[in-house]
Parts: sequence; structure tokens; C-alpha cells
Amino acid sequence: MVSSPGGEFEFWFDFGSCYSYLSVMRIEGEAEKYGARVKWRPMLLGPIFRALGFQNAPFVIQKEKFAYVQMDMARECRKYGLPAWNTPSVFPRLGVLPLRIVLVGAEETWVGAFCREVMHRNYALDQDINEPEGMKVILDALHLDSRGILAQAGSEEVKNELRERTERARVLGVFGAPTFFVGSQMFWGNDRLEDALQEASRGSSSRS
Amino acid sequence: MVSSPGGEFEFWFDFGSCYSYLSVMRIEGEAEKYGARVKWRPMLLGPIFRALGFQNAPFVIQKEKFAYVQMDMARECRKYGLPAWNTPSVFPRLGVLPLRIVLVGAEETWVGAFCREVMHRNYALDQDINEPEGMKVILDALHLDSRGILAQAGSEEVKNELRERTERARVLGVFGAPTFFVGSQMFWGNDRLEDALQEASRGSSSRS
Repeated sequence: MVSSPGGEFEFWFDFGSCYSYLSVMRIEGEAEKYGARVKWRPMLLGPIFRALGFQNAPFVIQKEKFAYVQMDMARECRKYGLPAWNTPSVFPRLGVLPLRIVLVGAEETWVGAFCREVMHRNYALDQDINEPEGMKVILDALHLDSRGILAQAGSEEVKNELRERTERARVLGVFGAPTFFVGSQMFWGNDRLEDALQEASRGSSSRS
Repeated sequence: MVSSPGGEFEFWFDFGSCYSYLSVMRIEGEAEKYGARVKWRPMLLGPIFRALGFQNAPFVIQKEKFAYVQMDMARECRKYGLPAWNTPSVFPRLGVLPLRIVLVGAEETWVGAFCREVMHRNYALDQDINEPEGMKVILDALHLDSRGILAQAGSEEVKNELRERTERARVLGVFGAPTFFVGSQMFWGNDRLEDALQEASRGSSSRS
């Protein structure tokens, strides 16, 4: 066990997850309040759900819960000042390409802004988030080298890394998103973001 | 649609549900802060889960989620100043008798204190909550007519009422506990208690 430096905490998410949307939009602002630093941990929820025996997100399969989540998301979007909730026409939307881009930019200052733009595209604009054209628009608007980043995102190395991260999430016991880790302490759900940040700001010990 | 009088809101729960435990312990204190009034709505989660195709609570079946819930409950109990969390030796524990007693006392001032004692017995003392002796101890300590209340709780009328309430919950779209209703607005989970209370204090319109 070593001590976790500077209030770092891990944020495991997928762009297709609507509760990850809430956390992506809030996380940098909230982390700043607590003096904590986000470690971006993209993962693919699909393989995680399948490893747990589900063909899709449990609440998408269960129609009663799905109906509730629509009401809940509408209220949560109001609570956090986000655009009015409309269930995207494709839900959950596949976002493999932007997850790979997050791996390219995980240590860069632009990663938070990039993630917010992808989420906005999915949940406010109801647009595809898995094709290069849309990602290029976002990267260009952030004044980034979109061509270079997209090339890196398409490399075998980055593709493998996303698969490895997903497998790592599964081994850590992740079963949904968003999930936060402060050292070995796991926190599931956007509702636990503040608790995770409080734990991170206490300078918890890490897993290793 | 008629206006909901005096900030009333419905609290649907089962004594076997650990997140209902958190809400039972908090609800009267929180409701008072918001000037809202709790309508106690006991239900049996077992038939609801079975109607949805589950043999038990979804998180009990899914071992990854069950492991997480133990961590989460430990933190939540600390957060709310409750005794240290230990998974009860029987989980979820059947509590049909105390649910029937809640129906007997639903409009009485003692119902909140009774529910807290039952939850304490289940989650802090790890004791059976489904036999008359234990319920008698609780009712006697509250200076109530335990013999009369237990007789009423065992009547066919009350037994039927609990079955009807459970069916009503299912029809309303309840899929877990605790669930709060403010008029037709449904809020699921202890994490949404404050949101439900805020809605209740705004004087929302009711379902009928």
C-alpha cells in the first residue's frame, strides 16, 4: 500500500452510459472544489455486461427500470443545469472511437473538454459518436492535431489498450458506470461522486 | 389531478431491503426539515422481484454487485451515524409480520418508531423480525397494546391488504426499494429521498 498522490482518483466510464454523462459534465468542476485530480479510465461496458451474463445494460433490458431512468435522467439534467433530457434515438450508443481518443489524451489538459463535447453530441444533439468525421469536428474546435490524434486512436496499440483496460475494470469488480476508485475503495454511480472526492481529498492509500 | 395536501409523500419499503433501512432511519427527521408528511407504504419485495423475473433482489443474485453493496452500506452507515454495518446472517430477511403491523399502525404516531426498532433488530442486532415474540418486545417497549395489534396484524383483512398493496406497487412501476412517490413522480433509492422531499414541499399534484 502506497499513499495516493495529490488526491488522485480514477473515473471509469463509457460514453454510452447516461449516468456517466452526468459525471463527465460535472467531474472536473467538482474535483477542483475538493483539490482532487481525475485519472480518466475509459472502458467498454458491453464486454463487462456480457461477462456478467447480460446482453445489454441491466436497466435497458428491464423495461420498468428503463421507464424510471427516463424520469430520473430528466430530473437529474434539470438538477445539474444540463439540456433537457431526451432519450437518444440510439441507446446505448457505441463510442469506441472516442474512448480510444481518451486513451491518446488521458494525460493531456484537453481530455475533459473533449469528453464533455462527445457527451453533448450524444445526449443533447442525438448524433453519432463513433465515426471519425464527428470526432474531427470536436478535436478541431479544441485546436488540436485531429489528424494525428485520430491516427493514434486507430493504432493497434491503442485498440489493445482499450481491451486491456476493459478487462482490468472487470477484474477490479466494476459492473456498471460511472465507477470511481480512490485507492482500493470503489464508488458506483454519479450519486457517489462527492463521496469519492471526499475520500480522495483525505489522501487515501492506493491499491498497489 | 388534485393537489397533494400538506406535502404528503408515499414511502414504499420492505424490512428486508438494506437501502430501505437507511431511509427508515432517516425519513421522519428529514421529512420534518421539509415540512412533509410520510405516508407509510409497506410492500413485499419478493413477489415484485418474481413478477419481474428475478428469484431474489437483483444485487443479491449478482455477486459483483453484492460485494459492492457491502462496501457501500458500510460507508452509508458511517455517513448517517448508524451502527457499523454487518451483513445480517439471513439476507434478505423476511419481515411479513412487521409489514402487517405497519398496516395496522399506518396512521398512528408510533409507526415511525416501530419501523426503526424493527430495522435495528434486523441490521444492528442480526435478529429474526418475523416472529411474534420479537415484535411483542418492540410494541411493549413503545407502551402499545401488543396483544391487540398482533391480533389485528394476523387478521385475514390485514393479510389481504398487504397482498393488495404489493400488487398496487407493481402496477405503479415499483421495481425496488425504497421508492418514494410525490403524486405521480416516482423516486427510487435512499439517494433520492431529499429530491422527493423537495418535490413534496413544492406541493406537487397527486396521481388521482
